[in-house]
Amino acid sequence: MAMVGGGPGSFIGPVHRMAAELDGLARLRAGVFSRDHERSRAAAVGYGIDPDRAYPDVATMLAAERARPDGIDFVAIATPNDTHLPIAAAALAAGVHVISDKPATATLAEALELRRHVAASDALYAVTYTYTGYPLIREARERVARGDFGRIRRVHVEYPQGWLADPVEQGGNRQAGWRTDPAQTGAGGCISDIGVHALNLAEYVAGDRIEHLLADLASVVPGRLRDDDATLLLRFADGARGLVAATQVAAGARNDLRLSIWGERGGLSWSHADSQHLRLCWPDRPDEVLSAGSPYLGPAATAATRLPAGHPEGFIEAFATIYRDFAHAIRAATPVAQTPLCGIEEGVRGLLFVDAALRSWAQGAAWEPVEDAGPHP
Amino acid sequence: MAMVGGGPGSFIGPVHRMAAELDGLARLRAGVFSRDHERSRAAAVGYGIDPDRAYPDVATMLAAERARPDGIDFVAIATPNDTHLPIAAAALAAGVHVISDKPATATLAEALELRRHVAASDALYAVTYTYTGYPLIREARERVARGDFGRIRRVHVEYPQGWLADPVEQGGNRQAGWRTDPAQTGAGGCISDIGVHALNLAEYVAGDRIEHLLADLASVVPGRLRDDDATLLLRFADGARGLVAATQVAAGARNDLRLSIWGERGGLSWSHADSQHLRLCWPDRPDEVLSAGSPYLGPAATAATRLPAGHPEGFIEAFATIYRDFAHAIRAATPVAQTPLCGIEEGVRGLLFVDAALRSWAQGAAWEPVEDAGPHP
Amino acid sequence: MAMVGGGPGSFIGPVHRMAAELDGLARLRAGVFSRDHERSRAAAVGYGIDPDRAYPDVATMLAAERARPDGIDFVAIATPNDTHLPIAAAALAAGVHVISDKPATATLAEALELRRHVAASDALYAVTYTYTGYPLIREARERVARGDFGRIRRVHVEYPQGWLADPVEQGGNRQAGWRTDPAQTGAGGCISDIGVHALNLAEYVAGDRIEHLLADLASVVPGRLRDDDATLLLRFADGARGLVAATQVAAGARNDLRLSIWGERGGLSWSHADSQHLRLCWPDRPDEVLSAGSPYLGPAATAATRLPAGHPEGFIEAFATIYRDFAHAIRAATPVAQTPLCGIEEGVRGLLFVDAALRSWAQGAAWEPVEDAGPHP
Amino acid sequence: MAMVGGGPGSFIGPVHRMAAELDGLARLRAGVFSRDHERSRAAAVGYGIDPDRAYPDVATMLAAERARPDGIDFVAIATPNDTHLPIAAAALAAGVHVISDKPATATLAEALELRRHVAASDALYAVTYTYTGYPLIREARERVARGDFGRIRRVHVEYPQGWLADPVEQGGNRQAGWRTDPAQTGAGGCISDIGVHALNLAEYVAGDRIEHLLADLASVVPGRLRDDDATLLLRFADGARGLVAATQVAAGARNDLRLSIWGERGGLSWSHADSQHLRLCWPDRPDEVLSAGSPYLGPAATAATRLPAGHPEGFIEAFATIYRDFAHAIRAATPVAQTPLCGIEEGVRGLLFVDAALRSWAQGAAWEPVEDAGPHP
Repeated sequence: MAMVGGGPGSFIGPVHRMAAELDGLARLRAGVFSRDHERSRAAAVGYGIDPDRAYPDVATMLAAERARPDGIDFVAIATPNDTHLPIAAAALAAGVHVISDKPATATLAEALELRRHVAASDALYAVTYTYTGYPLIREARERVARGDFGRIRRVHVEYPQGWLADPVEQGGNRQAGWRTDPAQTGAGGCISDIGVHALNLAEYVAGDRIEHLLADLASVVPGRLRDDDATLLLRFADGARGLVAATQVAAGARNDLRLSIWGERGGLSWSHADSQHLRLCWPDRPDEVLSAGSPYLGPAATAATRLPAGHPEGFIEAFATIYRDFAHAIRAATPVAQTPLCGIEEGVRGLLFVDAALRSWAQGAAWEPVEDAGPHP
Repeated sequence: MAMVGGGPGSFIGPVHRMAAELDGLARLRAGVFSRDHERSRAAAVGYGIDPDRAYPDVATMLAAERARPDGIDFVAIATPNDTHLPIAAAALAAGVHVISDKPATATLAEALELRRHVAASDALYAVTYTYTGYPLIREARERVARGDFGRIRRVHVEYPQGWLADPVEQGGNRQAGWRTDPAQTGAGGCISDIGVHALNLAEYVAGDRIEHLLADLASVVPGRLRDDDATLLLRFADGARGLVAATQVAAGARNDLRLSIWGERGGLSWSHADSQHLRLCWPDRPDEVLSAGSPYLGPAATAATRLPAGHPEGFIEAFATIYRDFAHAIRAATPVAQTPLCGIEEGVRGLLFVDAALRSWAQGAAWEPVEDAGPHP
Repeated sequence: MAMVGGGPGSFIGPVHRMAAELDGLARLRAGVFSRDHERSRAAAVGYGIDPDRAYPDVATMLAAERARPDGIDFVAIATPNDTHLPIAAAALAAGVHVISDKPATATLAEALELRRHVAASDALYAVTYTYTGYPLIREARERVARGDFGRIRRVHVEYPQGWLADPVEQGGNRQAGWRTDPAQTGAGGCISDIGVHALNLAEYVAGDRIEHLLADLASVVPGRLRDDDATLLLRFADGARGLVAATQVAAGARNDLRLSIWGERGGLSWSHADSQHLRLCWPDRPDEVLSAGSPYLGPAATAATRLPAGHPEGFIEAFATIYRDFAHAIRAATPVAQTPLCGIEEGVRGLLFVDAALRSWAQGAAWEPVEDAGPHP
Repeated sequence: MAMVGGGPGSFIGPVHRMAAELDGLARLRAGVFSRDHERSRAAAVGYGIDPDRAYPDVATMLAAERARPDGIDFVAIATPNDTHLPIAAAALAAGVHVISDKPATATLAEALELRRHVAASDALYAVTYTYTGYPLIREARERVARGDFGRIRRVHVEYPQGWLADPVEQGGNRQAGWRTDPAQTGAGGCISDIGVHALNLAEYVAGDRIEHLLADLASVVPGRLRDDDATLLLRFADGARGLVAATQVAAGARNDLRLSIWGERGGLSWSHADSQHLRLCWPDRPDEVLSAGSPYLGPAATAATRLPAGHPEGFIEAFATIYRDFAHAIRAATPVAQTPLCGIEEGVRGLLFVDAALRSWAQGAAWEPVEDAGPHP
């Protein structure tokens, strides 16, 4: 795979890389990581790939990679919105699959044009609406679809962020910079950046289409040329009413996406801050809390899970942090005892615990020293 | 890197692989994935590595890899406890770094022998006490160390599991099989398997050493030859009292590790089920809830984090699930619309939302159709 | 005090009585508990008051009580909405203070008329918007007022109920009956019943006035003549945007009122399901969780609290349940051991525990029998 | 009823009063509120009762009340532990029922003596182990008793407090004063004060008797003559293992009593900080969360509940705060607008909301002014 974007300072680029490679099904091999070729080559080194496969532009990359026997099979787009269409169109035209960050494009006209490109190509195209990848979101969708809650009546999505509460784009924050620049972000601001996540999530889980909406947008921070705050009322094809409240100016809010759906017979709620659980409510029996990895989950959630129940998804990262510390220690020849790692001493202590515990047990639970601690005071 | 263990049916093997590779600092290249060479080769294919680097035993692997210019630099041990010592000793003797699952060895005598091997080798040795990799655990440790809570008075670790509540080892559960087999698990049962996690965590965060303990162990499920339930009272060098309650027979419990520490001036609590938050309590001001990725965290937590606040650690996996679905779709040439992925239609709908929202806003918040939905009823 | 309403089957009548008397500042002495005089007298007996002070109508009550030296000083109104105005007007005209359940009246015209009655009387008039009585709601209001969060930007109130998800009014549910009957409930349905709670709470805590609103109401359950579902967009005088989502047809929802407010510098959230805590969020420091009864709370919350921190408000009811069981046991001469109460045996066991614990301590923590249990196996 | 204790500065006295009267089944009429007769009379006035029924001592009270036609039927004991026995014995001898705060007495010998008094009297005796009054605790007990969780394996009670983390008894804190004074508190400190709550709760819910215990007590704060910290291992008659961790020196902890029980087939957990919910866990189906007041609860919980689901127990107090504010306003003739109460203006605004909402709805959701706010900007 190749990536376009994701160069120095990018938040989402490294996430795309880690995510793409996690299951060993893809490897980042090439990319256009920056419009500046030298920065792009530097980013390639940072990603641990051959800098000769860091190209100056997409056309060059597609041509060069097509010529290689081990050329890329797909491209991941992690650039500002205004460049999504040309990059995707070029890749599709070259028969290279495309996976793109959201929104698909900067404007509706571009999206319709992109649809034509997708239709004309044999290559696949997907959008990374991230929240659709959570196992419990897929479980929720499956349960709505099979009718557990009856006909759906209300769909609420709340998506408060606070990182644009001040005009940080004026202070050099690059993430804020392009997202508030009409030339790069496109027609919408907050509505494009996170509103589309919320609206997609509403349709994805409800399994229904929004037919009408009413939008109360605002540019709250003075000087903004695009909305930074959005509240929408929704009407779904099947009659459900909905609500999206997305804002980027709620100081102190992080990324507290919450979804609630209620139907004739029960409801569900999910929160990004507690993403591995799904809560169901019923009129006549106790609420239920479903946990990722549990045996009672359906096939969709199970297929989206890597660990058994009780091992929150952060488990892999915690493990990875230990490996990262270890890799750094190897490279720098740092003794383990000088790192946050646990080494042989902590390993030995583990067995000292076991040994003392077994001695204590053998005496019907008596105080025993661990190692050479001496008698109990 | 190479792995020993982690073959078919392993829970922890794939976690080691994903974790090791997450940051692009290591790649699984070789291994002894099973005692059965054919199964080992099959596992190698599953991991996407050259089956010729799936070796029949550790000695062969170390010799063969040493002869390669791209030979392994470290080995990860993910086997039952009784094999940890010989594998680690062989690797260390060969100058290959070792990162091992816990416990370090099956018995105390072995651990002391391993300590001698580590001392005699220039290679590094680390144990994957996973919970020490969580950013908030490192933050907790840092805050205890700098005295935020005053002298520590109590340290509680609760670690209830329920997966051994029934004698599942008699029904062919391999994970349960070796963990309840004295020949493979070593001197302790539950105390070795999860008790050492709890005890290590207590010392890691409290920054103090347990000097004495009193253990009330039990083999609750009839027929077990090792403990499956353990409660320990602890006394730390600095006077703190502690408590570990670890069990594997609490039906319905998943892996609900919880840590609480109180000192003279305040306390902290952390739960594995909510691993990205750390709660602090104080006598005279509000409780505080710290979130992973936040700017106010110290260097230890920050170094152990990959994402900004509000992006729970599962975010990478959710993203990865989308990539995995995409990789599978590419290989099978499945149209995106037939997968759980969002494709061009969902991409277009995103811009339809934005467009309708902007039209609605332009009219001071009026109902607008999304696409060709017709007039609002 | 007297009550109007609150007869057999009433939910809110007994709550008014318990609440009024809790602090020993008022006693229920008289009332018109039902339009049916016999039922009214029966209710009086149930409330433990003199049935001769259960009157057939309000006018009779006001006249009779005025003639008594110990006549009532105020009347609590707990009747359907359509009767609020005449009852309140009569009491005010008689110089009797009025405390009324919400909404003030059934229609706006009535409310304006009631305002004139209040202005013309020396008696006091108050509405029981219950949520304004929670200590943390008062703390929230105080903190907003003093500017902790800067200028307020967003105010969200979510109020989902599910008890009207089905047409239970057709099955004899009296609470549902009058609330869905236009003659008794007045102009609005859900918007009158719980919407006014939400809107009042928004203004109460935000300390600002809603100047404009946009309402998307619905009669979801077929046959309803009033709205049972309401979503409103709000615009406050000071520029804040707001949102109220109140519904009574969200199956499985109980009474999960939630309030969130964000300003330029931080935010707050409160949930009725966790009413004794208030959560604050900030861009640059940890979230804070305030607990009822804590010493750091301001005067408004402190004045609204009866117990120290850590004693949730339900503590009084738990205690009261024990007293209730005891009072019933006395009346029925039931031995304590046949009730859910703890009696002398449990009392003795408490001291047996203490005694055994002290013996165990004296031996440096050894197993000791409790009472005559014999030696430890 | 009469109360002994509960005079000025008492925390638990007013709770006994509110609890006893909540259901209208008892009224505080007499008492010995202080050893100082003048303070006792002053307390009577504070409680709103006849100061002539504030007696100088218990014997006088029992004699005087016996002589009255409306004399007391029971006495509530809310004094330090060392006085429980003589007060209870005197009342029982006089045929007056007794409800006593815990522990039953200061020492085991006294408890055994009290048992003889109870046996010799026709009057009833009960101990207010408060936590047994929570509806979900009764539900938990009922479900354990009927075997939902199979044979019980582990019972954990954690009860951390922090209010004695410093030697506040030396600074004039009266609550701390008698609880750390051996003459008043009796044989135990923390173990008597809160340990007995924890141990009673363990037996009450588990439905089993503790046969053996092992206690690790401590006097953590220098100068204390009784334990202020206690950890106990328990063994129940039916084989379950248990654990009580009770401390009063965990700085920052409030009153965070937590109970967890696991059996062969599932488990339960309850927390005082979230007292209206009970969480159940199962190996093979989702966790369940039970809410107080729900229709699916059993008879024991239902009998201990006053409100429907979704109305947390604090609801009554919130209501009561409004009544209290109103009573104070009446007595001081304070205009409602100068209190935290909502008056006619807030009442009118409620109807203005409804009116504006209905106008907006009539137009298919359009912006409407509330009152005289003018056109929407």
